[in-house]
Amino acid sequence: MNLCLSRLPSRSKYDEIQGRYCQREKGHSGSCHEFPFLSDIAAANGAVKQKIIRDSTMTTGAAWKSDDAGPNRILRWVMLLSDEELLQFGINMAALKPQVVAKLREKAAPYEDCIASAKMLTWLAHQMTDAPEPSAWVKAYLEDNFGPMRPNSTCCIVCKEPLSFDLFGLAQRGKAEIETGHASPRQHNPDNIGFAHRVCNIAQGSRTLEEFYGWMEEVLKRVRARDPRDQTL
Amino acid sequence: MNLCLSRLPSRSKYDEIQGRYCQREKGHSGSCHEFPFLSDIAAANGAVKQKIIRDSTMTTGAAWKSDDAGPNRILRWVMLLSDEELLQFGINMAALKPQVVAKLREKAAPYEDCIASAKMLTWLAHQMTDAPEPSAWVKAYLEDNFGPMRPNSTCCIVCKEPLSFDLFGLAQRGKAEIETGHASPRQHNPDNIGFAHRVCNIAQGSRTLEEFYGWMEEVLKRVRARDPRDQTL
Repeated sequence: MNLCLSRLPSRSKYDEIQGRYCQREKGHSGSCHEFPFLSDIAAANGAVKQKIIRDSTMTTGAAWKSDDAGPNRILRWVMLLSDEELLQFGINMAALKPQVVAKLREKAAPYEDCIASAKMLTWLAHQMTDAPEPSAWVKAYLEDNFGPMRPNSTCCIVCKEPLSFDLFGLAQRGKAEIETGHASPRQHNPDNIGFAHRVCNIAQGSRTLEEFYGWMEEVLKRVRARDPRDQTL
Repeated sequence: MNLCLSRLPSRSKYDEIQGRYCQREKGHSGSCHEFPFLSDIAAANGAVKQKIIRDSTMTTGAAWKSDDAGPNRILRWVMLLSDEELLQFGINMAALKPQVVAKLREKAAPYEDCIASAKMLTWLAHQMTDAPEPSAWVKAYLEDNFGPMRPNSTCCIVCKEPLSFDLFGLAQRGKAEIETGHASPRQHNPDNIGFAHRVCNIAQGSRTLEEFYGWMEEVLKRVRARDPRDQTL
C-alpha cells in the first residue's frame, strides 16, 4: 500500500526538526491524518486511541516525575537530538540527574518507528478479546502492514495470557491494567512492541523477555533444589 | 534470654499509645537501648542500621509520596489505630485517596513484630557474604532468637542467590540495590521477612512468593508450548 505521506501542518516547535506525515493511502479523499488507522479504536474508547499514540510517540516519565525537574513526556524522536540541539528547545539535559538523562535517552526512537509501532499496537488491540471490530478499510490497512488478523489472539507479551480490550477501562490504585511493553526494553519498533499486564510489565523491568524467562528458569531451579531447612524462607 | 524491657523515655507523641522498650538482656549494666543488637552493623555501615530500623518499624510510602498529601513514612503500629484515634494525632485518613489508605493499612504491624523483624534482619545481614562479624554478645543474642548463624548463607528471599553486604552500599539510579522483602507482602514478622534484590522485590510485587513462583511456572509452560509463528512476540 502506498501512503499519502504529505507533510502535516506544524503543531509544535519540534515539528520543525522532524516533520509529521499523513498515513492515509495515497490518493485518499478528504483531509490528511497521521493516525487514520485508529478510528475504530477511538470510536470504542477514545482513551485507548490516546494511549496508543502516547506510548508510541512519547517517552515515559512517571518514575522520575516527582523527583526531578526533567520533562515528563517528550516526543521520542526529539530525544535523538544532541544536548546542544535540545538546549535550543529549552531542554537543558545537563541540568537533569544522570539517571533521568539515561531514561530519556533510552526511550529515543525515529519518527518512522514510532508511527509503525502505533500501527502494530492498533493491529494488536483489534485482536484482543472483546475488542471492537475494525472496519473493512482499517482491517485491510493494518493487514497490509502485519498480516491477517485473528480475533482473540493478542496475548500479554510477558505472560502469554490472552488480553481483553476491557482491561483498558480498568484501573487499580489509579494505574492502568494494560501497559505497552517491549520484548527488549530499549528497542521501540513493531517487531519488539506489544501489550502487557501492568504487573507483568513491572516484573519484566529493564530486562529483555529472553533474559526474564532465563532468570525465571534459574530461580525455579534454585527454589526446587532448596533444602527445606534453609533459613531464608 | 530474658530481656530488660524497661519502658524507654518518650521521644514522640506516638509513644503515649505504644510504649517502646529496652531490648537489652535483663540485668544489663549501662543505659537501656531499643536496638542494641544493631551495634556491629552500625559500626560497619550506619546507613544499614538505619535501614533495618526504618524498614522494620515504618510503613513505606515512596509510591504515593508524589501524588498525595498522605504521610510518607509512619510507624507501623500507629497504622493499627482507628481513623478516629489517628485524627487526634493530626492524621486525617478520610482526606487520603483510598489507595493510599489501603497501602498504609496493609503495612500495619504490632510493635513486638516490628522489633522481632529488626532482630531477624540483623541476624540475616550478619550472614551475608562480606558482612561484618558480630561480636560475641550480638551473636549469642541473635542466635538465642533464631538459631545458629552460618556465614554467607543469606540469600535473596525471591531469587535465592547469595546476597553480599556490600550491595547495601551500591545504588543504581538513586535506588538501593537491596530491599527488605516479605514472603507474603502483608505479613510483617520474622517468619515472613528477609532481604531481596531490588529488581526481585519489584518483580514479586504484591504477590506471595508462592504465588509468584506458581505464576513463573505457568508462564514458562506457555512460553515453551508456544507456536513460534505466533504473532505476539
